Amino acid sequence: MSLASAPGDEPAYPVALQHLVEGYLEALDFGVDPRARRLVEAMRYSLLAGGKRIRPVLALATARSRGAHPEAVLPAAAALELVHTYSLIHDDLPAIDDDTLRRGRPTCHVAFGEDIAILAGDGLFAEAFSLLLVTQQGSAEARLATAAEVARATGVRGMVGGQYMDVVGRAFDDDDLRALHALKTGRLIEAAVVCGAVLTGAAAAELAPYRGFAVELGLLFQIVDDILDETGDEEELGKSVGKDRAQAKVTYVSRYGLEEARRLARESHARARARLSALPGDTDELAMVTDYMLRRRA
Amino acid sequence: MSLASAPGDEPAYPVALQHLVEGYLEALDFGVDPRARRLVEAMRYSLLAGGKRIRPVLALATARSRGAHPEAVLPAAAALELVHTYSLIHDDLPAIDDDTLRRGRPTCHVAFGEDIAILAGDGLFAEAFSLLLVTQQGSAEARLATAAEVARATGVRGMVGGQYMDVVGRAFDDDDLRALHALKTGRLIEAAVVCGAVLTGAAAAELAPYRGFAVELGLLFQIVDDILDETGDEEELGKSVGKDRAQAKVTYVSRYGLEEARRLARESHARARARLSALPGDTDELAMVTDYMLRRRA
Repeated sequence: MSLASAPGDEPAYPVALQHLVEGYLEALDFGVDPRARRLVEAMRYSLLAGGKRIRPVLALATARSRGAHPEAVLPAAAALELVHTYSLIHDDLPAIDDDTLRRGRPTCHVAFGEDIAILAGDGLFAEAFSLLLVTQQGSAEARLATAAEVARATGVRGMVGGQYMDVVGRAFDDDDLRALHALKTGRLIEAAVVCGAVLTGAAAAELAPYRGFAVELGLLFQIVDDILDETGDEEELGKSVGKDRAQAKVTYVSRYGLEEARRLARESHARARARLSALPGDTDELAMVTDYMLRRRA
Repeated sequence: MSLASAPGDEPAYPVALQHLVEGYLEALDFGVDPRARRLVEAMRYSLLAGGKRIRPVLALATARSRGAHPEAVLPAAAALELVHTYSLIHDDLPAIDDDTLRRGRPTCHVAFGEDIAILAGDGLFAEAFSLLLVTQQGSAEARLATAAEVARATGVRGMVGGQYMDVVGRAFDDDDLRALHALKTGRLIEAAVVCGAVLTGAAAAELAPYRGFAVELGLLFQIVDDILDETGDEEELGKSVGKDRAQAKVTYVSRYGLEEARRLARESHARARARLSALPGDTDELAMVTDYMLRRRA
């Protein structure tokens, strides 16, 4: 597997699921008062900037592995992409990472101004909960459990806690590095798989193997992210590379070196595949996403 | 009634309910990883800055009017204060209102830095949904309806939409002024009353009179807010006054003049009281909040 080191074919990906998500996101207009039109434009600008839609695709692929139609979990899956987009917009702000380029385009605050970017992030977060709580269908218990999962995954013991650690901490030990990533990116990836399972009828007691698989996938995602920040192609990635090094961030590459980070990624991938084999149903699409996570170049 | 024009006794207020909320908020530590300690400090700094806790008190008073114990809706009520605090923190940011003083203390970004303030707001919003979805007890349907109400109240057709209109618009007509306030402050006040009713068993069909009362209360709140920005005492208010005028914002005072704004407030108060009389149960505490809204000086 390439680990972003060599040009070659685009790794396989469940594109049908990706397109399903894309179509759903494109149709979202948030039914807004015309007086707030530009706020919605800013939200859609960042939301529709492309990308693999990994989190929603994971939710849909999990639902499919359980024999359900992916459409059945589409609003909740889309909500995960709204949450992810909100976190990127706020992360990119001048006061935080001060990034000007994202997916090959000016970041939200560069295009719309900092005030509107802050509110666009806030708006996406709120609208994500509307998708989870109002639009998504299913039993009240399942919808409640799904929204609760997303709330916990995005709070101080989740994504925001990880973002905070990333903002303030520049001297981490191994434990801190793992904790930061588990919170900042891992927790939402876990929530994606859990949402796909819960909305298709998985009971609380059945969730442990789904969580185990997803946690490993989150780790794999982050190791490869660190490698790509060092070795990736700026044009393919659509964002600046080498920023981690410039900001003296502790990453898997800075801590272990490039070769060791690649070995850790391969090990993590193998563990994720092993954990996947413990899940019931047809997990082919989840396997495809798992392999993509290792081989992706952007 | 004084309409902030004369010194005198503090108007009556359901302080027992206020203290119940205060105690609950003080006990919230968000069970955070010690590595994110300062993020939680920032959240608690803004959350525990005092104030009348109008939104949670409205939720508790509504529950009481329906014969329930206020404790039964306390997590959801507290969630409304987390949402309100999050909106204040983001509103105060340099890129938005650039306020340095709030409730007599430096604003969150002045005390903790802009990066942490942005994340503290994000964290409070997420934790509000955890309170609504995980901590709050009751039927799955009622908890789902409550969280959905808050999601809609805070989205682009609610609070964030209103904040956006406030940020970008400087030339409003009467319709726009009403729409801005209905979204920015009115919608969350409405959600507070609705949460108190829904969590104590009110069916969707019974909500119309509660909404009618709360919408009027939100209007009253805003008219008085505009009057206080013109006439209030900076020390009592704990924030700068005259900012609306300095920023050339359209307010009830700038549009109608002080005397006419006072008359509109008294009319709105009378309408709110009339609508309150249509609600079932013992509405004494709701009446007290309604009268306080007109008479408050801070």
